[in-house]
Amino acid sequence: MNGAHALLATMRANGVTTVFANPGTSEMHFVAALDDVTDVRAVLCLFEGVATGAADGYARVTGRAAATLLHLGPGLANGWANLHNARRARVPLLNVIGDHATYHARYDAPLQSDIAAVAGALEGSVHNPRRPDDVAGDTARAIGDAYGPPGRVATLILPADVSWGELATPPTSWPVAATPDATEINEELLDLAAARLRTTRSAIFLGGAATTAELLGLAERVGAASGANVMVETFPTAMDRGAGVFQPERLIYLSEFAAAQLAELETLVLIGADEPVGFFAYPDVASRLVAKDCEVLALAPPGSDAGAALAALVDLLDAPRVAVAKGRAPEAPSGALNAQSLAAAIAATLPEGAIISDESNTSGIHLYGATTYAAPHRLLTLTGGAIGFGLPVAVGAAVGSGARVIALESDGSMMYTIQALWTMAREGLDVTVVALSNHRYAILDFERQRVGVTAVGTASERLFALDQPTIDLCSVARGLGVPATLVTSADELVDALRRSYATPGPSFIEVPLASAF
Amino acid sequence: MNGAHALLATMRANGVTTVFANPGTSEMHFVAALDDVTDVRAVLCLFEGVATGAADGYARVTGRAAATLLHLGPGLANGWANLHNARRARVPLLNVIGDHATYHARYDAPLQSDIAAVAGALEGSVHNPRRPDDVAGDTARAIGDAYGPPGRVATLILPADVSWGELATPPTSWPVAATPDATEINEELLDLAAARLRTTRSAIFLGGAATTAELLGLAERVGAASGANVMVETFPTAMDRGAGVFQPERLIYLSEFAAAQLAELETLVLIGADEPVGFFAYPDVASRLVAKDCEVLALAPPGSDAGAALAALVDLLDAPRVAVAKGRAPEAPSGALNAQSLAAAIAATLPEGAIISDESNTSGIHLYGATTYAAPHRLLTLTGGAIGFGLPVAVGAAVGSGARVIALESDGSMMYTIQALWTMAREGLDVTVVALSNHRYAILDFERQRVGVTAVGTASERLFALDQPTIDLCSVARGLGVPATLVTSADELVDALRRSYATPGPSFIEVPLASAF
Repeated sequence: MNGAHALLATMRANGVTTVFANPGTSEMHFVAALDDVTDVRAVLCLFEGVATGAADGYARVTGRAAATLLHLGPGLANGWANLHNARRARVPLLNVIGDHATYHARYDAPLQSDIAAVAGALEGSVHNPRRPDDVAGDTARAIGDAYGPPGRVATLILPADVSWGELATPPTSWPVAATPDATEINEELLDLAAARLRTTRSAIFLGGAATTAELLGLAERVGAASGANVMVETFPTAMDRGAGVFQPERLIYLSEFAAAQLAELETLVLIGADEPVGFFAYPDVASRLVAKDCEVLALAPPGSDAGAALAALVDLLDAPRVAVAKGRAPEAPSGALNAQSLAAAIAATLPEGAIISDESNTSGIHLYGATTYAAPHRLLTLTGGAIGFGLPVAVGAAVGSGARVIALESDGSMMYTIQALWTMAREGLDVTVVALSNHRYAILDFERQRVGVTAVGTASERLFALDQPTIDLCSVARGLGVPATLVTSADELVDALRRSYATPGPSFIEVPLASAF
Repeated sequence: MNGAHALLATMRANGVTTVFANPGTSEMHFVAALDDVTDVRAVLCLFEGVATGAADGYARVTGRAAATLLHLGPGLANGWANLHNARRARVPLLNVIGDHATYHARYDAPLQSDIAAVAGALEGSVHNPRRPDDVAGDTARAIGDAYGPPGRVATLILPADVSWGELATPPTSWPVAATPDATEINEELLDLAAARLRTTRSAIFLGGAATTAELLGLAERVGAASGANVMVETFPTAMDRGAGVFQPERLIYLSEFAAAQLAELETLVLIGADEPVGFFAYPDVASRLVAKDCEVLALAPPGSDAGAALAALVDLLDAPRVAVAKGRAPEAPSGALNAQSLAAAIAATLPEGAIISDESNTSGIHLYGATTYAAPHRLLTLTGGAIGFGLPVAVGAAVGSGARVIALESDGSMMYTIQALWTMAREGLDVTVVALSNHRYAILDFERQRVGVTAVGTASERLFALDQPTIDLCSVARGLGVPATLVTSADELVDALRRSYATPGPSFIEVPLASAF
């Protein structure tokens, strides 16, 4: 019984049975340990950012932690951006990083680096067992940390000699992490919130764990009974949507518009979310989005029991059941491809129970509205702003759910973690990648104006345009093993989507779109 | 005059005129500032690891710092692995990272993170100007830090408001970084080293700045006059090689073999290099590679004047000029493709003055030997062990030198930073990518045995094999805009190489090889 076996056994005892891996020499004993069990699924990723994003996606759709397996400091760094997104999504994640043997560190070998410092910047927790006998306990503590609540990235740094070393005293059973309950809701704050919702210009602001169909339904009742608006954060971790699911007003990404949405409020009641702030700062635009005199009540901060808060508000307000608003999904579109027909095509064809991983950015501007009455589905968004999340999260969501996943991707964003396509092919994942190609970092056209840059010269134009050459995305996708189609009309897109949903395994649909700006 | 202009002006005043960029919103004012000058080349990269590796490659061939331009914490993290390699290469590098506005940080917006902690783990220096008037001074200090000696990664974190804010007092001239001389060589150590080289079983161990043709030639004379062996580190930053250049014995990557190379030595004299240690630790293998009683003399540590040390040894030993050993490059091979014929094809066709970026790993095992008498060229290797360095370094080497660059890549390694191909196409860089495809992380087959894992089961085999599906590398390369050819014989490889060298711009040659192990 070595440290690697102790890690694996403790993971299994805690239900962590999926590993998204990009291993190297330091991880060989853990890899070997995988051969001894049949109930752990190891998924190979060609780049660490795919592994970490997949673990995020897996947690978003299952509520459970997956593990990563990364190789020393550079492996962690390669996976860091999507760990940052997972951190902001507040999902549980066990981040396993192999390290040099404990006695080798002081020789400053080429791959030596301060792994704990880089992992520490994820603001979860970092565990570093120094003896094989410490591995099980540290692993259980890390898993406990990962589950929070709220969920976080818990890192386990496993030195090679701790991995290959034998335990002096193998335990008779493996430690199971404590699962603390969500923090209870403050009763006084609850009464205050109920009163304010009734008597002031107010809104409930939902996020995090409060975006399931059930909790959205409770929020709707609270809103209807109190007269408060119900809103949802701009980038929810995993939000139920579609016909039959209450759809709150989504906070707009652009600070100026978001501030206008919130301008009249005297009270904002936070449930599952933090107070919204500007995604970026802009000259002469405030970072806070609510009005200066708006009272912000953090009724159910992340990690507290959002469902209990909403249920209590329903009780206090004696809020009756509400008939969910009915509407129709768009018809399947015909004719030209543009941001509208794209959105309609997705909405019209979406299979029930599908999961959307949305990194469509500027090209997807009409998607949220169009899918309001689509078949019930779940939406995963870019919680941490680190682009390159969409394809990896789709990998993990497909592994975790078995459902059809639609990855809505922009050409600029997808190139950060394009390697995810290969894992989709290899694992036969039911992912439909819809690749929106405008051959441009179109968001920057927009953002530069917002920060006050109005003229574009030759040098900056060359940093915005993804042309000369344009990328043949279908060729790249086929090279990575995913069947690919370029569509040239809305009709072709609808056909391609339907064909994809009817075909097991991944497919790739490139949708050329003019820049939305 | 805003902070972005001050940064750019200070860079130009210090000769930093190439920027490898992947900008976002926080960097828009710097991008706009680029429009106002014509003497700074901004090169767009689709992924930050390409930008950082390119800055490393640029420095390796020019000796000068390039700048990166990265977007907040996730952008830094995406570029961190190749910054780690640059750190280990001890090249000068100005790492510019845009950050949120100073006043926005406390709102913990989605992209907020501890950039300084992640940058600090690179063990260079970190500068974080808080006012536009501080930018020029901090930039000059960062550039000074970058040049060392020895070279290092100096990070400048530029908050958006410091970038867009106007200087209260624009300077009349821009600060220029001091350029300290290399540390002088210790005279007593010099005398001791000369004596030991003459009287003990000894070797000179070269690395870092001591691998130019000129210094290799001095080392050869020292070796010939003293009877000492002359060796070079396993992974030199930039080593002159080929006909007419003295070729020392290269330390073997595998600790066991390296220890055998060094076993008999009573003295090891370090010039430009640190004491060699095992790349990884292995059970029951020592981390140090020299014998326990071997005296290690750090005569010219990194940052000191290696050339002066070698010249002084030549004088002390009264070492005469030596006729450089003559030999013949292999003939152009014919017949089957294998590791030998690959190496011969490269060596036989190599253009004079070419640069090799070598990430061929197991497939390239015969390359070093075969190219000993090839046309004079320069070899760049994986200094920090973070794979995915080869294509990005080739980008920077081509931008910096204008010479033909041959990127020898393994399929596993190249998939980490495959996005580099697009930048090669866009900039019309004269890079010949030789992609060795064995559809396997073959190094792991080998490493797992070395750490004591002898059996391979189903789970671990699936983590070593890059099959199901195999990657069609040529399809990926074409998609990214680089003309690609699959060769099936040594003759075809020779033809493809010669065609590539005769054709401006990049080309991609896939060479299928059976695994070397």
